[in-house]
Formats: sequence, C-alpha cells, structure tokens
Amino acid sequence: MNNSNSLITDVITAIRSVVGVGTFALHEPNFGDLEQRYLMDCLNSGYVSSVGAYVDKFEGLIAEYTGIRNVISTVNGTSALHLALLATGVTTNDEILMPSLTFAATANAVIYCGAYPIFVDSSPLNFNMDLIVLEEWLKANTTFKECRLININTGRRIKAIVPMHTFGHSCDMDLLLDIASKYHLEVVEDASEGLGSFYKERHVGTFGTVGVLSFNGNKIITTGGGGAILTNDDLLAKNIRHLSTTARIKHPWEVAHDQVGFNYRMPNLNAALGCAQIERLENFRVSKRKLNEAYLQAFKDIHDIRIYQEPRNCSSNYWLQSLILSENVLNKKESLLKETNAHGISTRPLWKLMHQLKHFSNFQKTTMHGSELLAKCVINIPSSPHLL
Amino acid sequence: MNNSNSLITDVITAIRSVVGVGTFALHEPNFGDLEQRYLMDCLNSGYVSSVGAYVDKFEGLIAEYTGIRNVISTVNGTSALHLALLATGVTTNDEILMPSLTFAATANAVIYCGAYPIFVDSSPLNFNMDLIVLEEWLKANTTFKECRLININTGRRIKAIVPMHTFGHSCDMDLLLDIASKYHLEVVEDASEGLGSFYKERHVGTFGTVGVLSFNGNKIITTGGGGAILTNDDLLAKNIRHLSTTARIKHPWEVAHDQVGFNYRMPNLNAALGCAQIERLENFRVSKRKLNEAYLQAFKDIHDIRIYQEPRNCSSNYWLQSLILSENVLNKKESLLKETNAHGISTRPLWKLMHQLKHFSNFQKTTMHGSELLAKCVINIPSSPHLL
Repeated sequence: MNNSNSLITDVITAIRSVVGVGTFALHEPNFGDLEQRYLMDCLNSGYVSSVGAYVDKFEGLIAEYTGIRNVISTVNGTSALHLALLATGVTTNDEILMPSLTFAATANAVIYCGAYPIFVDSSPLNFNMDLIVLEEWLKANTTFKECRLININTGRRIKAIVPMHTFGHSCDMDLLLDIASKYHLEVVEDASEGLGSFYKERHVGTFGTVGVLSFNGNKIITTGGGGAILTNDDLLAKNIRHLSTTARIKHPWEVAHDQVGFNYRMPNLNAALGCAQIERLENFRVSKRKLNEAYLQAFKDIHDIRIYQEPRNCSSNYWLQSLILSENVLNKKESLLKETNAHGISTRPLWKLMHQLKHFSNFQKTTMHGSELLAKCVINIPSSPHLL
Repeated sequence: MNNSNSLITDVITAIRSVVGVGTFALHEPNFGDLEQRYLMDCLNSGYVSSVGAYVDKFEGLIAEYTGIRNVISTVNGTSALHLALLATGVTTNDEILMPSLTFAATANAVIYCGAYPIFVDSSPLNFNMDLIVLEEWLKANTTFKECRLININTGRRIKAIVPMHTFGHSCDMDLLLDIASKYHLEVVEDASEGLGSFYKERHVGTFGTVGVLSFNGNKIITTGGGGAILTNDDLLAKNIRHLSTTARIKHPWEVAHDQVGFNYRMPNLNAALGCAQIERLENFRVSKRKLNEAYLQAFKDIHDIRIYQEPRNCSSNYWLQSLILSENVLNKKESLLKETNAHGISTRPLWKLMHQLKHFSNFQKTTMHGSELLAKCVINIPSSPHLL
C-alpha cells in the first residue's frame, strides 16, 4: 500500500469512526412529527400558495431568531439576492464587489440586475473575502466623483459589496463595515449558508443594509426551496415585499401593478415546513457544532489533513465541515474525492471559482492567491445535523 | 328599490342559487387524502428540494395529459415564461407581440429578457388576441430584412408572439399559427390558465415552439407555487432544463456552470402536491364545466347579463367563469363588484390592461377597442371546482 492509499484509508476510517457505516450525503435534512403536523395543517387550511398564516409565522420566527426587524421570505436564496440588490439601488452598469469563492447564485443575481461583478480574493483564514486585498484594490482602482465611488478603469459606479459567509463562517464584519463606510458601499450580506451563525454574538445577515438566507434542501433548515431577505430598514422592507409579490397595488378586487414586479414570494406550503424546521434549528446547530468536535478528534492523528475550525469572533453553524490538506498532500485531493465518493461518503471540493468559469472570466478581479490555494486544499465532508 | 339594486339582487340570488350560502373565493383549491398521502411520502423520503421522484413523476403526468414530449417544471408560471422566452432566442432589444389583456407576468417576463412588449388588442369573442387587428398592425408596421421581421418604427427585430389563453378559453390557434409562420415569429404560448383546455382536441400550450402552464394556488390544480414549460423540441427541452437548474455541469461532486443560469426548478415537495392534484384534474375539469352550465341556467332570465361560454373549437377548463354586462348596464359594474364582495361572493373585473399601467404606457400598441370594451363589461365570479 503506497502513502496515497494509506492516507485515503485513514481519512475514510476517520470519517466512519464518526458517522458509522452506510452512505452519507454531504448535507441532508432531518424531518419528524412536527414537519408532518404543520404540513397537514397547512393542507387542511386550503392555503398552500402565496398567502397564508405559515408565511407570516415563518417570517416572525426568522426575525426573532436573527434579531432583525423585517423578514421577507422568497422562493429561494437566488431570488432573495436578486431582490436585495435591486432594493439597495443596484442598477444596469453598476459594479458589485463579491468573492470569487462562492456559489454561482451570488454572481448570477448581480448579472440579473444588469450589473458587473468584480471578483475579490478570499482568505485561507476564514474562506471569506480577503479584506486586505479588497482595500488595496479599492485604493488603486477607484476614485470619488460627486460622492459616488467610481472604478477608474471602467468609469462605472461601484455600488455595493456582497460578502458571503462561506460554509457558515462569518466574515470579519467590523473591518468589512469600516471599508464599506469609507468607500460609500452598500452592504448586501449573502448569508445563504449562515442561518445559526453569529459574529460577536450578532446573527450574520443583520449587519448590512440587507442580508439574505437560503433554505434550500442542503441547508441547515429547509423549506424545500426557499430564501429570505433580512433588513432593519422598514421602508426598504416594504418595497422588497411589494416587489416580491408582482408589485400589485393593494385592493380587495382590482388587479393592477405600479412597476415591473417579481413572483418571488415563498408559498405557504413551503413556509409550513420551515416553521417546523426553525423550531428545531437550535438542536441542529448544537449537533453540527458537536460534529465538528467529533471530526476534530477523529482526525487529530492524521498528519497533513486538519479539520477546519471557526474563525475568531465567529460562532459558526458549521454548515459544511471542511478538511484542509497541507501542501505536501495536495496531489492526493482528486484521489481522495474519488475514493470517498466511491465508498458512499459524499465529499466535494470548493465550487469552481467564479473568475475561472468561462462565462465570468472577462470580469474584473483582484489577485487570487488565497482563493486559488483554497481551491486546491479544501474538501467538504458529510455535515448533516443527525450524523452523531 | 331602483333598477341598479334590483339587478344586483338578481345577480347575487342567481349566484347563490348555484353555490349556496357562505363566503366564496374566486378560485380555491381542493385537497383530500391523496394530497396528504403524497406529501407525507415525500417528507419521509427526505427529498423535498430540487431533486426527487415526485418532480420526475409530475413532469411525466403533465406530459401524458397534455400530449407533449417534454415537460420542465418550475417554481412558478412567471419563471416558466421567462425561461420559455430565453430558450426561443429572445434577447435584449427584441420586440414581443402579446395581448394587453393578460396578467402582468406575461409582460414582466418580456421585460426580464431586456425585450420590449408590443401590446395587441383582444377580441370580445374569446378574450384573446384579436388576430385581425394583429395582422393589420403587422402589415402596416413591419418589413423583412435578411429574413428577420423588423419593426419599421423602431428598427428592432420582432422575435416572438405570446398568445395567452384567457380564463382557459383557447385562442384561434390555426389562424395564429398561420400568421406566425407568415411573419417568421416564434410562438410562446402562455397557457398559464389553460391546463385542461383543448383547441380542436389538442391541449393548449402544445402548439407553439414552447408553452407555459401555472400551478399557482388559484389555478385548476396547484402545487402551492409552480409552473411548467412544454415543448416537443428535445434539444430545447434539454437547454431549458439546464438553464432552470443553475446551468450546472453534470458531475458527481464538482460544482461548475457553463453559463448564467437560474434557480427555477420546482421543489419535490411542491411536485408531490401536484402529483395528487393532477390525478384529480379530470374531475375538476368536469365539475368546472358543469358549473358553467349551472350558472348559465341560473342567469338565463337576467336580461343585460350573460354567462360567457367557450368559443368555437375550444373545449375549455372554464378556469374563471365570466359575466358579460350588456351596454345599458355597464354603469352598474362598480356597484356589482362592491356589493357581491360585500356579500361574501368574491368577484373581480379584468386585470387592468397592460397598456393602461403607467410603467407600461410608453410601449407600442395596436388599437384597443376590443380590450377596452371587455374591461368595461366582464366580471369574474366564483369558479372553484367543488362549488356544485
């Protein structure tokens, strides 16, 4: 048995020592009696679509948990991002700073607005936008004209910055908000992966002008498909809610609209599932944090691979657990992925970096040393809340 | 009691003679044991999100019912329209012919593509695009350049025509297809209201290059929120499916994308509800057709108001039942709406015509005599399948 095989065997053994025998998805939801009860109640009410008590209840529960004033639930995280950007005033030909290391939805939402992403490097310390690289880029490439931040290379306005809390680990929000303030940037937090994660005891997604959550099937809680927009700005919330419901003018029977709107409202059926799930969120969060400790213990004797732990000031939901390969075993990444998946243990590398996707390759970017290193050394492993 | 009050009393009495006492929505869904069973089965499977057996099954059932080769289910009818337009090659600065008499989603989807709607009049005969007005407009305002239909007023390409089968009553598809063929127009059928409606025994939504259905809570069957794209073109179907699932490149663990995609796939949870509903569709259709006969009978002695019946060559699902006011009682429309709603009988006028919405008022349009007449004389009345 060569070293490569030995390492792979060690990794599989370590994961199995935590999760046991069987096949394991990267992240699966967990449902019980509560989900059944709420779904049946929703069905019996006759309200399964875009109006209903569960949508309001779900929004209230999310508001309570995250400590935000307003929650608007949507059909998914992508639509939430789209509306969040539009609501903060992003428009055609604006430029938006965002990490290259993210799921494609972040970049797609920028494109839907007719805006241009500028891809920013990420830091190996927390998988999130490298704020030193960001500020260097801003210093070298921007100027102010009539209080607007202008990209000197394109002449276009840079309107917003979209931090993404990768795998539930929070960005350094203090520093990010300082930079945003200095450069007059709107902050739209992509907290799609961050429900149950806190930065200095404040929930992620509540620092920016608006924040976004996702409740896709692979997230810490799910509504089937779903997302939400968080904001403390009441007027903005009213506008977002209006836009998400086809911009229909309120009237008991007339149907008219006052602008181009969207059909982005979460159906009541999906919200019913979400109401059950959020009641169990704190348990899921505790389980997922314990899973991190168990993996930490299981991998402690494996040289060259470590289990990632939350960054300073972040209490993470550990949405996805991550292995970090050291430099001398980077060449084993592909075999590790192949063999673990072949053994029924779902594992995954990072999403292909946005600046490396062909259709995004012509957009502007900072240096990418951090992201490209992370792409070589990170592997996500099974992370469901019920694995222990 | 004056004449106006007498007419209103007669209308309320006639509706109550059909539906009985109580309050009645315009259109409510009907759920039973089957819906409960499928939802519970879906929950127990653990697959509630964008992958799952119910999505495939639902698409198969819709394909079978409508007689189409390919069905791609989506989060709602609006997203289905958006993808349908994109897939047929609609792009920025194209112009799209569509009725002014429609729900706003038809126009919004055109705007999402960066295209321009041209609003066409509708005929009092079937509530659908007036094909004589349409052809006159085309003759007077277009020319061909290099096989492209060009609007001589704007110089822009007219790419497609979007007929909408209002309230489930089919357009005259033979004539529409003739015109589309003559003018090289792609046909994108907005059959959002048409599931269960047939033109010359062929299901609506299956005549154009692509067709669109909606399963919103107020439709003949519902998935909470949902829509579908129908096409006999296998390659187009493949592209639409790819676009609807974030344009992700198939791979067991890598996550990469080959174009800007959308998060438009129907969740499995919603498809489970849809599978139960479509098994009951034929019953709903029969009930709704009987409801038309019952209303016809109930209104037969009311002068000045008639119940609308399906146009020639159309076997309609009668999604929404319609009262047609004759000219001498048009001034009673507002009182009728107000009083019926006050008595717990939901009624509604037509959607405000698209060309009369302020934000759409600068787009091109044909003459609008038919639509504007219809807006004055049509009132929809309770139409749920279980009213009899």
